[in-house]
Amino acid sequence: MTLELSFLRGEVENLQETNTKLMGEINNCNQSLEIMTEKVEGNNRRVAFTAVTAQYIPSVYYRTDMIYPNVITNLGGGYNRATGVFTAPVSGTYIFFTSVVSWDNKSISTDIVLNGNSKVRTFADSRGFNVPEHYVYQTGTNLVSLQLQVGDRVWVRKYSGTGYIVHSTPMHTFSGYLL
Amino acid sequence: MTLELSFLRGEVENLQETNTKLMGEINNCNQSLEIMTEKVEGNNRRVAFTAVTAQYIPSVYYRTDMIYPNVITNLGGGYNRATGVFTAPVSGTYIFFTSVVSWDNKSISTDIVLNGNSKVRTFADSRGFNVPEHYVYQTGTNLVSLQLQVGDRVWVRKYSGTGYIVHSTPMHTFSGYLL
Amino acid sequence: MTLELSFLRGEVENLQETNTKLMGEINNCNQSLEIMTEKVEGNNRRVAFTAVTAQYIPSVYYRTDMIYPNVITNLGGGYNRATGVFTAPVSGTYIFFTSVVSWDNKSISTDIVLNGNSKVRTFADSRGFNVPEHYVYQTGTNLVSLQLQVGDRVWVRKYSGTGYIVHSTPMHTFSGYLL
Repeated sequence: MTLELSFLRGEVENLQETNTKLMGEINNCNQSLEIMTEKVEGNNRRVAFTAVTAQYIPSVYYRTDMIYPNVITNLGGGYNRATGVFTAPVSGTYIFFTSVVSWDNKSISTDIVLNGNSKVRTFADSRGFNVPEHYVYQTGTNLVSLQLQVGDRVWVRKYSGTGYIVHSTPMHTFSGYLL
Repeated sequence: MTLELSFLRGEVENLQETNTKLMGEINNCNQSLEIMTEKVEGNNRRVAFTAVTAQYIPSVYYRTDMIYPNVITNLGGGYNRATGVFTAPVSGTYIFFTSVVSWDNKSISTDIVLNGNSKVRTFADSRGFNVPEHYVYQTGTNLVSLQLQVGDRVWVRKYSGTGYIVHSTPMHTFSGYLL
Repeated sequence: MTLELSFLRGEVENLQETNTKLMGEINNCNQSLEIMTEKVEGNNRRVAFTAVTAQYIPSVYYRTDMIYPNVITNLGGGYNRATGVFTAPVSGTYIFFTSVVSWDNKSISTDIVLNGNSKVRTFADSRGFNVPEHYVYQTGTNLVSLQLQVGDRVWVRKYSGTGYIVHSTPMHTFSGYLL
C-alpha cells in the first residue's frame, strides 16, 4: 500500500511538472499569436487615395503646388483635399502616380515631390499645333515608388506651364497607395 | 495514510482543474489561429490582370465599350476577354490603369468606368500635325484607385475619337490589381 | 482504502492521457503557427524599385536596351543599375511601369520586355510640330502586370526613335513592384 501510494505521489508530481511545461508552451504560443496578429494587422492595413481635377491656376508661370479638390478614394485618410498634400499615416513602400493634360496651345509640366524634393516629372505639351479650328490635348503621366516614414509628405508641384484643361470626367489625377 | 491519500486526492483534483483550464486555453489558441489563417489567406489572395490591344472600332464616334481581347495576366479570373469587363471577385481596394495611343490625324479618349460611371479620363490627340510623310502617335494614360465590393464592374469606355492604332506589341492596355 | 487508491490511480491515468492529448494539440498549434509565420513573412516581403533618367543613345535608330542609372528606390535589390535589368528575387505578381518623353522633332518608343519578349509598348512622338522657336515634348507611358518566377528578367528596350530629352528632374522612369 505504501509503495502504491508513493508511486502515485511520484506520478502526480510528474503530472504537475508536465502541466507547468504545458502552461509555458501555451504562453509561448499566445505570445507568438500576438506578434503575428500585429504583423497580419500591419499587412491588412490599406492606404490608398485618388484625388482629381486640379484647380485652374490662371496665368502664373512659376512653380506652385497643385491641389486636387475632388476625392475618389481616401482610404487611411492620408490625403488632404484642402492642401493637396498626402501625409504618410504609416511607414512603408508607396506608389504614386499623377497625370496632367494640356491644351490651348500651351504646355503643363508637374513634379511628384517628396518633402519638397522633386522625384519624377510629367510633361504635356500642346504648343505649336497647326489646328485652327480646335485646341489639341496632350497628356503627361508618371509614377514613382517611394519608401516613406510616418509623416513624410508627398504632393504634386507645377514645374511649368498654364495650359491645363478640366473636363467633368477628370483627366488630372493624383494617386498613391501603400504596397 | 488517510492524510496522505486525501492530500493526493486534492492534488489530483487540482490537476484536473488545471487541465480543464489548459484545454480551454488551447481551444482559444486554435480559434485565434483559425481567425488569423483566414486573414492571412485573405492577404495572400491576389487579383491582377492586364488585357491589351483594343479592338478597332472603325468609324463610330460615340461612346462604346472597349474590349481588350488579348490577356497577358488574369490572376483571380476577374477579367472577361469577351466583354472587356472586370468583375471584382473579392471586395477590397483596387488600382486600375489604361493607356490609349492615337494616330492618323485623329484623337482617341477613354474613361475608366465603375458600374457605368466614368471615374478618370485619358486623352490621346494626333490632330493637326504638320507631317505629310507619316502619321504621328500620341499617348493618353490614367490610373485610379477604387474600393470595390464583390461583383462591382470596371471597364474602359470610349469617350470620343476613332484614331487608335494597333501594333503587334500592344500599346492599348487595361490593367487592374487588388492591393 | 484500496478502492480509494485504485480510484485515484484511475484518475492519474486519465490525467496522463489528457496531458498526452494536450501536448499533441500544442504541437499542432505550434506547427500551424510556423506555417502561418512563413506565409505572413511572405506577405511582408516587399520588392519595389524606381530607376530614372535613361542614358542618351545618340544616333542609333534600332533596338537597344535602356539603362536607368539613377535609383530612387530598390527594395529587395532586384534592379541592376549597370544593366537596367530587374531580376525577380521572389516569385509572385509584379506591376511594371515605364515613361518616356520625346522632343527635338523626333520620336521615342520603348517596350517593357520579359525574358526578351516585348509585353507592352510606349510611344512619345514630337515629329512634325510647327514650332520654330522651341522643341515640343511628348510623353509615352505604359503599365503591365506579370506573374514572375524567381530569376525572370524584366527591362525596357527601345523599339524606335532617338528623340528623348533629359531634365535634372527625371521624366524617363522604370518602376516595378511585387503585389
